[in-house]
Amino acid sequence: MAYCIGLFALLSLFGCLHISHADVPPYTEKYFNQTIDHFNFKTYGDQTFPQRYLIQDKWWKQGSGPIFFYTGNEGDITDFWAAIGFVHELAPSFGALIVFAEHRYYGKSLPFGNHSLEADYIGWLSVEQALADYAMLISYLKQSLSSPKAPVIAFGGSYGGMLSAYMRFKYPNLVTGSLAASAPIYMLDPRFDRSFFFSHVTYDFAMTGAAGCVDQVKKGFQTMDQLVRQGLKGLEQLTMDFQLCSPLVDSEPMYKHLQGWVRNAFTYLAMLDYPYPTDFLGMNLPANPVQTACNVLMNATDPVKGLAAAAGMFYPKDTSQTPPCFNMMADFIECADPTGCGTGPNALAWDYQACTEITLPDGSDGKTDMFPSLPFTLDMRRSYCKQSWGVTPRVEWTGVQFWGTRINETSNIIFSNGDLDPWSGGGVGKSLSDSLVAVTVKGGAHHLDLRASNKLDPPGVISARETERSYIQRWITAATMT
Amino acid sequence: MAYCIGLFALLSLFGCLHISHADVPPYTEKYFNQTIDHFNFKTYGDQTFPQRYLIQDKWWKQGSGPIFFYTGNEGDITDFWAAIGFVHELAPSFGALIVFAEHRYYGKSLPFGNHSLEADYIGWLSVEQALADYAMLISYLKQSLSSPKAPVIAFGGSYGGMLSAYMRFKYPNLVTGSLAASAPIYMLDPRFDRSFFFSHVTYDFAMTGAAGCVDQVKKGFQTMDQLVRQGLKGLEQLTMDFQLCSPLVDSEPMYKHLQGWVRNAFTYLAMLDYPYPTDFLGMNLPANPVQTACNVLMNATDPVKGLAAAAGMFYPKDTSQTPPCFNMMADFIECADPTGCGTGPNALAWDYQACTEITLPDGSDGKTDMFPSLPFTLDMRRSYCKQSWGVTPRVEWTGVQFWGTRINETSNIIFSNGDLDPWSGGGVGKSLSDSLVAVTVKGGAHHLDLRASNKLDPPGVISARETERSYIQRWITAATMT
Repeated sequence: MAYCIGLFALLSLFGCLHISHADVPPYTEKYFNQTIDHFNFKTYGDQTFPQRYLIQDKWWKQGSGPIFFYTGNEGDITDFWAAIGFVHELAPSFGALIVFAEHRYYGKSLPFGNHSLEADYIGWLSVEQALADYAMLISYLKQSLSSPKAPVIAFGGSYGGMLSAYMRFKYPNLVTGSLAASAPIYMLDPRFDRSFFFSHVTYDFAMTGAAGCVDQVKKGFQTMDQLVRQGLKGLEQLTMDFQLCSPLVDSEPMYKHLQGWVRNAFTYLAMLDYPYPTDFLGMNLPANPVQTACNVLMNATDPVKGLAAAAGMFYPKDTSQTPPCFNMMADFIECADPTGCGTGPNALAWDYQACTEITLPDGSDGKTDMFPSLPFTLDMRRSYCKQSWGVTPRVEWTGVQFWGTRINETSNIIFSNGDLDPWSGGGVGKSLSDSLVAVTVKGGAHHLDLRASNKLDPPGVISARETERSYIQRWITAATMT
Repeated sequence: MAYCIGLFALLSLFGCLHISHADVPPYTEKYFNQTIDHFNFKTYGDQTFPQRYLIQDKWWKQGSGPIFFYTGNEGDITDFWAAIGFVHELAPSFGALIVFAEHRYYGKSLPFGNHSLEADYIGWLSVEQALADYAMLISYLKQSLSSPKAPVIAFGGSYGGMLSAYMRFKYPNLVTGSLAASAPIYMLDPRFDRSFFFSHVTYDFAMTGAAGCVDQVKKGFQTMDQLVRQGLKGLEQLTMDFQLCSPLVDSEPMYKHLQGWVRNAFTYLAMLDYPYPTDFLGMNLPANPVQTACNVLMNATDPVKGLAAAAGMFYPKDTSQTPPCFNMMADFIECADPTGCGTGPNALAWDYQACTEITLPDGSDGKTDMFPSLPFTLDMRRSYCKQSWGVTPRVEWTGVQFWGTRINETSNIIFSNGDLDPWSGGGVGKSLSDSLVAVTVKGGAHHLDLRASNKLDPPGVISARETERSYIQRWITAATMT
């Protein structure tokens, strides 16, 4: 069975991890008649669409047990069901009902069916509508399952983690507490510095990789520039070194695309820097891929070949060609997400969100990071979004609506961030009160804590999960007593 | 200068109080470019409309002083500016900036100009859009006035009080605390008993009026029924007793309208049961109108004439006719608000809100109240709203979105309710924590505490205002220290 992990763009980029079917906990797939427009009673009146959710009541102590509610993010909910092992591991001892809700406009939860992404219909994709969907679903479940007082714990990772925090912000009447894993919520404050991302990717390679690794990456990109300046001969060399299916031509956009393609591989190696091998797209991503990539870089015959080999750890070769080669135009598609997008409806929906409310980090600047300067300023974002979707990001609005960095008035949220995760710089790194808790996962990449336990887990994630468990227990106990 | 007080339907019913121009504190009228649709980036994209707000910085200690922000309700904001004297009285000692924001679709804040109420444009009238408007305006003011840290206190009465509470629910990043006066927020819980209203009107007459007053009212309505059963002769008698401009004919709807017209007068006498005379619509509404009405009732030659005289205290006579007479069809228009609506755009906008999110109380039942059974069940509401506006109230949604009675997770809100106010039964009558405080205004009708001080104020409102002042001071001090 193929499944995708909860990274921002990875889901849309292409990606599915392969795990054996036996590893996926069983569920029942259900649909809820969800209101199309919660905030307007006229345009679509009472019209609804079938929103998918997955449910498992095997461990539920109905009447006393809590509801563990995963706030689905930008992909098929079945993928999150399979990837978020922590929730499944927690549920039995809590006697919890597990519900994973699919985000509107993703997977099978399409408000307007196959027309959903068209200009006339895409506008009902918003964070507010998604939160309202979850609120209505929770309310419905509590009533229909005769458990109006069941404490609800929201779980989410990455964008889903932002949603789980927002559920506690906006619907504390329904949600007792939230685990927001790797949720870069501060990023939505218009006055927050959005250059944290690629500098943290660089930091990961500096801290985790072999000595000199970052310099080697820089040297690689500089050498690429030198080759380009040589003209045709240099371009041929680059085509060969990177084993590209289509030869590089003398085009700045195409060369920038190659740079972005390489940068993106490094980005994902950092995000996926898990301590155990990950079977990714049929390739074997090794344990500790950053360390491995650095070894590959340091052992290469020259820095460009080193970059190529490291990038090759991440991208799949097109094996239909002889010899197999890399299809960089298909592997990495530039969009409003600086970590790239893929094709297909989920990728498009995510691009729209990155063009409206989810203002992702800026590009690399070549100063605070090891990459070439590939900027993606707010002006560039505006221009891209206007052209692609006919919309403008409203950064002031998002900052107001989701509180930016002024979140101290809420409570019962754990913000967990891996110290290896490039997204962590956009997250809540410091506890704000004894119920607004920052948990740092030492040795953790992108929401490692939400993944199933593994014998190779670093101690940092084991203790983080224990901390999370104890807060959740505390919230549930307090809620049950009132 | 004419102004309207902040009662639910009174504003739309017709009304304006007359006070001399000199009594109205001066203000500057401004406009803010407000987003038409905060929750949809496509349909209206970046389009804006001019939202009106009134501002007074005479007392403001810029840099340290707070912002007092009145969350405008269902009418022209100039009327609230004039009516909410308490805010003006508080501002000088706090060094506060005063801002009164006009609610979209009312007054001059029309998102689509004169087309705003048409079927294609009314849909952008919702509580969520209005709250988002206020949030964006507050954020803009804090930035443009270089006071990002100025504590904001939200004030509101009646529906505006609901909004001021919701601002604290949903935007605690912007609002430090709220005074929600006479705000029947519990009413929006779909499982809350919405029969509280007319029974409380009855209670007011029982507690405040002369002994036997309630029985006299009941007897009046019973006698009306007897007269109707007599046929033409009885109808003529009723026409004469009530001094109606158009004769009653043998029509059940017309008779029910008369009953509603009478009930409505009693309702407003209770809501406006202030301890000093109110110059209403050019008539002199006496101090303590409930007591006065009861005296009128008890001294009348028969109970029907008593009802007529009491109703006559509230409605204006049509003086263009000879002899002057009551135009009951124009005075009282049945709508989704059981206390009636008027004509004009503000009244229509309010009717739409009562058909969507603001589910007002049911009608009278003749058992828990002194009135005839004039029910307005949820089914009747649904049918009326479908016919009038093509919409259906979504009571489950409103309960979820505005938390129903599950509000204990918020803080820094004063819910004040007058014990004479028929709306108080839908409000928060008990403190939930030391920062979620219920204040009962003894001897107070509908948000008496928000009105300007008066030498005839009962001790209850004087002490309520002192309590309110001290909480506001405490919140501001705490916010300034962090």
